Amino acid sequence: MINRLSIIGVGLIGGSLARALKKANAVGQVVGYGRNIEHLQKALELGVVDKYETDIAVAVRDADVIVLAVPVGKTLEVLQSIKPYLNSKTIITDVGSSKGAVVKAAREVFGDALENFVPGHPIAGTEKSGVEASFAELFENRRVVLTPLDNTNEAALKIIRRMWQDTGALVEQTSVEHHDDVLAATSHLPHMLAFELVDALATMDDKIEIFRYAAGGFRDFTRIASSDPQMWHDICVTNEKSIVAMLDLFMADLERLRDAIKAGDSDYLLQVFTRAKKARDQFSMES
Amino acid sequence: MINRLSIIGVGLIGGSLARALKKANAVGQVVGYGRNIEHLQKALELGVVDKYETDIAVAVRDADVIVLAVPVGKTLEVLQSIKPYLNSKTIITDVGSSKGAVVKAAREVFGDALENFVPGHPIAGTEKSGVEASFAELFENRRVVLTPLDNTNEAALKIIRRMWQDTGALVEQTSVEHHDDVLAATSHLPHMLAFELVDALATMDDKIEIFRYAAGGFRDFTRIASSDPQMWHDICVTNEKSIVAMLDLFMADLERLRDAIKAGDSDYLLQVFTRAKKARDQFSMES
Repeated sequence: MINRLSIIGVGLIGGSLARALKKANAVGQVVGYGRNIEHLQKALELGVVDKYETDIAVAVRDADVIVLAVPVGKTLEVLQSIKPYLNSKTIITDVGSSKGAVVKAAREVFGDALENFVPGHPIAGTEKSGVEASFAELFENRRVVLTPLDNTNEAALKIIRRMWQDTGALVEQTSVEHHDDVLAATSHLPHMLAFELVDALATMDDKIEIFRYAAGGFRDFTRIASSDPQMWHDICVTNEKSIVAMLDLFMADLERLRDAIKAGDSDYLLQVFTRAKKARDQFSMES
Repeated sequence: MINRLSIIGVGLIGGSLARALKKANAVGQVVGYGRNIEHLQKALELGVVDKYETDIAVAVRDADVIVLAVPVGKTLEVLQSIKPYLNSKTIITDVGSSKGAVVKAAREVFGDALENFVPGHPIAGTEKSGVEASFAELFENRRVVLTPLDNTNEAALKIIRRMWQDTGALVEQTSVEHHDDVLAATSHLPHMLAFELVDALATMDDKIEIFRYAAGGFRDFTRIASSDPQMWHDICVTNEKSIVAMLDLFMADLERLRDAIKAGDSDYLLQVFTRAKKARDQFSMES
């Protein structure tokens, strides 16, 4: 049980975490902080937070756990602004999609005194954003990856691990670097492809009314292109190296596929499609 | 009402068409033909066809309408084998995803005597295949694109139009070339990206257990990579020009996005993501 939880940024992820912990009776009081008072008011009305503060100093004071649920690009600024109000027991965690940048920001603010900072990333979400889209079941059976550092306090790690388990999530641990590479492959790259595809087609659309002919497969494929642009901007900027490396690998493979289509290389095409179908069907059964 | 309908290839599309027409009381007898007798037997048991034939000559004899629901690559062979058994009134239509290749095959078999051949393409389907996956509602509110030729018989066109309307589909007409370009953009290109992404990740997977970290967005994004490899091989081979042109456009755009990520060009990234989100949200509202 976390007595007092402060959530910085009460949107889809922060809001769903609050709802899930309340549902599990795993939290005493939830305090919300954000920039937009209307959103905070909404969170209060929806019962997502017990109260909200417009002064971040008040919002984090006496918190047992502080969760940063803001775009990764805001991490440094938020950590700087809360630093004066922390005590030696305050645990901080975050939900950012690129962990290298978050840890870098934390080091800038705290130096090596990072014992109570537990970097985390719930691999869950929808293309929607905002507290209205939050729901208590968002993390059920989803993976949450924690990337503790060498000197992370074991007790702090245990509390954050327990917090996510209480939401119904499957908690894993890995290194910051491994997390960022894997996420670049399974999340960041697909998002880039979806954003770029929709943008490319939208540009053509003026001429040939392309979207009229799109089918269900297209709808599924492009759903993630509805995701929040600012959040994805931040992910690109903060996980640039892994994303560019993954894009380069992918583009080289795509070029080979393109050449095979051009050359009518049936063997190659059947090989790629068959391997992909097998992998996707297997993934689908396991998840 | 079509008195006698012959379906060559009783899979997801052929089977769903039969089911939909039966449900709408828009067909007398449905005769199925296919290569695999077990599949035909299954279609009969499921009530999808009224009977099946293992001799294509018998299957098409006295048919009012023959629907080719086979992979595009089989079109030439099927048309050649049914040609001797057609009469002057028999209407033929197809469901292929690339119309240029289908029309080319039809010209090879019938020369300019194509009055009763109505090329068509229902833009519907799932990643599943086979008659077991068929259902009567597959075409409801989906677009079916007919691409009649200069000398297509008006009465034949009307009957095929009516047939698809009876399934609940929205029937459109366009040219063969326009169809193939638009489908390359909205369907063939996304499928190539999904197949290639899953294949690329599956290759890496040995090393870093990549799929374990995939979330819901990845599941949606890659669903179409479960599609039938042979069918997609045929589409690639038969719509090669449009697909390669579309891939080239896309790869150039993706390269620009990659460079912007590498350079940390925030304006460019936000611009692309915001435009894409807007277009996707608008598409989502309209469809």
